[in-house]
Amino acid sequence: MKNYFISKSRRLRGTPYTSRVEKQGVTAYTIYNHMFLPTRFGGPLEELYKHLKEHVQVWDAAVQRQIEVNGKDAYKLIQLMTCRDLSKAKVGRCYYAPIIDDKAKLINDPVILKLAEDKWWISLSDSDVELFAKGLSIGNKFKVNIFEANVDIFSVQGPKSFKLMEKVLGPKINELKFFGFDYFEFAGKKHLIARSGWSKQGGFEVYVEHTEAGLALYDKLFEEGDEFNVKPGAPNLIERLESSLLSYGNDMDLGDNPLECGFDKYVNLDNDINFLGKEELKKIKSEGIKKKLMGVKIDAKEIFVTGSINLYDNKNNLIGELRSGSFNPMFNKVIGIAMINKPYFTELPEFHLSINGTKHSGKVCDLPFI
Amino acid sequence: MKNYFISKSRRLRGTPYTSRVEKQGVTAYTIYNHMFLPTRFGGPLEELYKHLKEHVQVWDAAVQRQIEVNGKDAYKLIQLMTCRDLSKAKVGRCYYAPIIDDKAKLINDPVILKLAEDKWWISLSDSDVELFAKGLSIGNKFKVNIFEANVDIFSVQGPKSFKLMEKVLGPKINELKFFGFDYFEFAGKKHLIARSGWSKQGGFEVYVEHTEAGLALYDKLFEEGDEFNVKPGAPNLIERLESSLLSYGNDMDLGDNPLECGFDKYVNLDNDINFLGKEELKKIKSEGIKKKLMGVKIDAKEIFVTGSINLYDNKNNLIGELRSGSFNPMFNKVIGIAMINKPYFTELPEFHLSINGTKHSGKVCDLPFI
Repeated sequence: MKNYFISKSRRLRGTPYTSRVEKQGVTAYTIYNHMFLPTRFGGPLEELYKHLKEHVQVWDAAVQRQIEVNGKDAYKLIQLMTCRDLSKAKVGRCYYAPIIDDKAKLINDPVILKLAEDKWWISLSDSDVELFAKGLSIGNKFKVNIFEANVDIFSVQGPKSFKLMEKVLGPKINELKFFGFDYFEFAGKKHLIARSGWSKQGGFEVYVEHTEAGLALYDKLFEEGDEFNVKPGAPNLIERLESSLLSYGNDMDLGDNPLECGFDKYVNLDNDINFLGKEELKKIKSEGIKKKLMGVKIDAKEIFVTGSINLYDNKNNLIGELRSGSFNPMFNKVIGIAMINKPYFTELPEFHLSINGTKHSGKVCDLPFI
Repeated sequence: MKNYFISKSRRLRGTPYTSRVEKQGVTAYTIYNHMFLPTRFGGPLEELYKHLKEHVQVWDAAVQRQIEVNGKDAYKLIQLMTCRDLSKAKVGRCYYAPIIDDKAKLINDPVILKLAEDKWWISLSDSDVELFAKGLSIGNKFKVNIFEANVDIFSVQGPKSFKLMEKVLGPKINELKFFGFDYFEFAGKKHLIARSGWSKQGGFEVYVEHTEAGLALYDKLFEEGDEFNVKPGAPNLIERLESSLLSYGNDMDLGDNPLECGFDKYVNLDNDINFLGKEELKKIKSEGIKKKLMGVKIDAKEIFVTGSINLYDNKNNLIGELRSGSFNPMFNKVIGIAMINKPYFTELPEFHLSINGTKHSGKVCDLPFI
């Protein structure tokens, strides 16, 4: 695949870590929430994948913007936007919570942090949820403040992240439960740190509100990390697919509902909480979904998915579309995420597709892959 | 400035014209509304600038997405979002109309097309206005449909665009008034074509709803365009600054209000139309704005603005920030757009700034430049 350059301007913002990752050898970016997200540091992606599964990486993840909702009606607005029941949410916890519209279509799949009874952060995937929240709030005359908080996440991921973070911040960091967060002091400032991150290799996300102290912590992790083989990294396509972590905009979008995406456990239709799209979801649930996100394994050594790729069964019926994919060394195949039509998602059929004009065969499978 | 590659995925969509511009030699992109917008075709930007001012270019401008609002309350919702009075808007006309929130902050600066009494397109700059419109509509229980229409614009810009379009579509195309639109037939389909575009060199925007026929028209313009020296192009930073065309996200954003951006003639506070932020704008107008978008001329041969750059007067007072800039061959200086603080925007002071560690001097000036 031919490479193209990205043009920089003020409209696509850098992060506080951009100058650092550029010194550290970043070679490619994607754009996410109007900002630069590193994707490559030279060398094959597979090297970074192997490193991530063995060692520890620090990622500039500032593109994961925080929309703060605070004020008297904060919970009411947050709950209105998500089909996950947050009525019993606890301060100090993160919640993966699909945001949907009145037609039950997926607007975003953020992690939502409850900071106080009347203060929440929506930690975004790639869409302007701030505008949706503002529109809803204005229309409903909610008493809330909504703004993008001045928070720039960096993520520490990999099996050795626990030891590295303990070395720098002390043993208390490892008392955090998965998706729990607390405040930890470094360089004279408190930093919200969650045990979370967009890999299944373990780790933390540091929600930096004090840029200078946050940069000092970022640098310290590299200074102290030699013994853990720390490297700069980025969300890794190979790892996230193997770990079945979905990506909004890639695997699912405004054309899909949460039941089609396998988010059943985050869809609460049983009590009287009030959220958009609830009646629609009840209807979808009773009628059954018409398409479903599934895994696929393809007999190929390479693939670059830059848009939906049609999948056909052996009678040439269109069975669905591939939305993400990458060669996976463990499976020695391309694995990917596909939206598969009814009834094929229950039949787990074999299929074929065309990659750069060459026909390859594959098989639908259940998620997660492992 | 070092160049970086852009990573492609389904999340950042190509356009129907992407495969064509890639054959035509595109070398760099920016991301706009989650899609690829060509920025460079090899060679210096100045070559394309000179070509644009003399000849004709075809631009892949599909990133300018259309949010369709139709239904009984369509006008009510459209008007609620913009401070421009659209109560007398006519079918067949385009309206540059700032979209603001309840604090009068700028959410987008689209061109809005009135297609019918109850059908409008919001032709977007770079933010997810669809989500804002949905939120507002849900909250207000408006009877409307809101969706991103299947429309992919290409733009024909430059002084010879009139002759080229006439050769391909007939003389009626040149009866269009500026910001007027009508339907023209090509390859068996009707295409909405407006006399508009993001340059001051004259031209048209083709709102392609029928992809195949639109691609045929795109190709035909190149087949017939030799005598007019037609080339593939893109919105041109040098030209748009010289022509004082503002760019949302670069020159102004959610931190600014329309009066600060010089949009006074699109701010209607005198009659009883209902829009968000109206009371706030009345207050701002009576108190006077605290900052203002202005032009600047800088004694430098090159600049790459990738974020706000502080400007200081000769007493080292911070007077504002540069938001866009480019060397301009006509002025033989860097010209740019800056947000200048009170009282400096009335004084048109000299200033200095640092570009790559070197101090340069400049002067604030009124807009437009010419």
